[in-house]
Amino acid sequence: MRRVAIIGCGMSKFGERWDSSFRELVVEAGLKALEDAKVSGEKIDAGYVGTMASGSFIGQEHIGALIADYMGINPVPITRVEGACASGGLALRQGFLAVASGMHDIVVVGGVEKMTDIDSNLVGDVLGGAGDQEWELFLGATFPGIYALMAKRHMHDYGTTEEMMAAVAVKNHKHGAKNKYAQYQNEITIDTVMNSKMVADPLKMFDCSPVSDGAAAVVLAGMDIAASYTKKPVEIVTSAQASDTIALHSRESLTGLKATKIASDKAYKLAGVTPKDIDVVEVHDCFTIAEIMATEDLGFFKKGEGGKAALEGRTGHGGEIVVNTSGGLKACGHPVGATGVKQAVEIAWQLRGEAGERQVKGAEVGMTHNVGGSGATAVVHVMRKA
Amino acid sequence: MRRVAIIGCGMSKFGERWDSSFRELVVEAGLKALEDAKVSGEKIDAGYVGTMASGSFIGQEHIGALIADYMGINPVPITRVEGACASGGLALRQGFLAVASGMHDIVVVGGVEKMTDIDSNLVGDVLGGAGDQEWELFLGATFPGIYALMAKRHMHDYGTTEEMMAAVAVKNHKHGAKNKYAQYQNEITIDTVMNSKMVADPLKMFDCSPVSDGAAAVVLAGMDIAASYTKKPVEIVTSAQASDTIALHSRESLTGLKATKIASDKAYKLAGVTPKDIDVVEVHDCFTIAEIMATEDLGFFKKGEGGKAALEGRTGHGGEIVVNTSGGLKACGHPVGATGVKQAVEIAWQLRGEAGERQVKGAEVGMTHNVGGSGATAVVHVMRKA
Repeated sequence: MRRVAIIGCGMSKFGERWDSSFRELVVEAGLKALEDAKVSGEKIDAGYVGTMASGSFIGQEHIGALIADYMGINPVPITRVEGACASGGLALRQGFLAVASGMHDIVVVGGVEKMTDIDSNLVGDVLGGAGDQEWELFLGATFPGIYALMAKRHMHDYGTTEEMMAAVAVKNHKHGAKNKYAQYQNEITIDTVMNSKMVADPLKMFDCSPVSDGAAAVVLAGMDIAASYTKKPVEIVTSAQASDTIALHSRESLTGLKATKIASDKAYKLAGVTPKDIDVVEVHDCFTIAEIMATEDLGFFKKGEGGKAALEGRTGHGGEIVVNTSGGLKACGHPVGATGVKQAVEIAWQLRGEAGERQVKGAEVGMTHNVGGSGATAVVHVMRKA
Repeated sequence: MRRVAIIGCGMSKFGERWDSSFRELVVEAGLKALEDAKVSGEKIDAGYVGTMASGSFIGQEHIGALIADYMGINPVPITRVEGACASGGLALRQGFLAVASGMHDIVVVGGVEKMTDIDSNLVGDVLGGAGDQEWELFLGATFPGIYALMAKRHMHDYGTTEEMMAAVAVKNHKHGAKNKYAQYQNEITIDTVMNSKMVADPLKMFDCSPVSDGAAAVVLAGMDIAASYTKKPVEIVTSAQASDTIALHSRESLTGLKATKIASDKAYKLAGVTPKDIDVVEVHDCFTIAEIMATEDLGFFKKGEGGKAALEGRTGHGGEIVVNTSGGLKACGHPVGATGVKQAVEIAWQLRGEAGERQVKGAEVGMTHNVGGSGATAVVHVMRKA
């Protein structure tokens, strides 16, 4: 397979973007990525975009064609990919395959979601479509409720505490405060989290990622031609994806995501690296407990020790592994389809040494970890400074 | 790039499938395809599924993971692809790329839609999301209305008549009558069409494809290993896709689809064939005028002569090119996401000589043509008896 590089990155500001439509968010991120890559529209061979639920949110499907149109790059074929909250990561994976196959030289990958301009009750129902509609949602389960069950079991089995979960939110807000694209750029304390409103016991408001608007984009090229576009190509060394049962009740364990474990084991093997080689990682912290489980499932800490590690600051700058420098889903925001691509943008910036105040010094190898639903899809990418 | 073959095919019965849920339809088609390919679940490396609007139709997104779960093939990664009515064709294209890249050996591709169990007014709104929600639907345009504009202009410019359009429906019902999977297995006459209720002048009820439930699936493998699974591999010689403006009003012409022209020109070139080499083709006849335009845009007839050719029987058995032996969208049915995959199943059966009473004698080269919306996406595959 042909080697693949990220040659350009772009993001819209994440947040409650009532100033911008879905189309405008895409263009905002997409044009920045093309400018960054110094690629003109006619050089693009194809595109992929991750969007979870535009049909329900804005009444619009056929997002690939819409984007080709509004980016002004017809007749470039753009294809939408959906895997709930992993939609962005899956779009990145398809772009990777399209270049790796030798079919295309230059491919643009985007992720976008516009979620804040609609009835907030509807948002919960729509997001519920990431889980098992017939056996979870229909019976009253919500997403915070599903992750609360995982949190309770993690607390029961390993002694994880609410303070440990709160520490994840505190660290991610600290990172988000240094990211001009983040939805929340304010620092918080453990008390902020502990005193916030209960959403689904033990998860409180500040344990949950927000509802957001936003878009992110990267431009991919064959490594053999990347040097003619950028002095700082970032190689996507490998892409791995795995599935698990759509409903939580069918799983063997509630304290980790099997799909994350399988996908990351495969990614490490294919890339020839181990967790110790990863300098910086963006993980899928839709809830604080999800980041704790991810740091365990990805092999950075033993099962059951993720919460303690978070509380002891071992997942921030200076720790064994720096997690979610973007601010994560918690502070940077979680426009669902955009998240997986935003993760790639953040890691690319880190490996290019362009992450400003949140730069991890000397970062050479990075990873992204994007999850769909309550863990029925996980997709992992390993990236390296080329 | 590695050569890619279809090694197995399966379909559910298309129609008003009130007996089966979305999940059951997928399993019905998927298991048949796996049996046909003699492939057990653990041999599958990955999957793609085309579905347009499950979020709106059944409140369920994250279709890839759902299918891996219900097919019992976890942790195989399955990814949903969406491009409106071209969703199935785009899923086939991603499966093709995944094998062609060398990343995977065996990939299953499915398409599915469950559309008949909901409020029929809602169906129109949801399908409208394949066009421009903000500039077409919001202002009252419907899909039949959009295609009616194309039909009127084609009649004005080329003298195409309502009888010519009716001839397309008559021929497709004739084919559908010989297909046990078709939604409508009854023959009709020109009068049936002409006397049917007006939907959007000049398109009458029998000029329109129906609302349907159904699923279709194919199993792909590298050509180098195909022989160990089947004696009759069908090669996917090439895949090409193009985009056009999402809204009809922005197009240069209303009498043809530029995306079809660009995608098919590319497909012919990459495959080293011309329209004369194609023995059998499945085109996207969402409306009868769409088949007429497709036979012109794909190069089988000169622009403006597609209607006359249909009336003269030159697109049926014994004609220059045999179009829509499955019955097309018109008679076989149009479960949106399934259509592009069903086209591939039909062409594979034709090239394997297994199409029964609707077999095109000596068929060696075939083509599928799948369109999203009113033509903002077109995807074309050329296939060959291997």
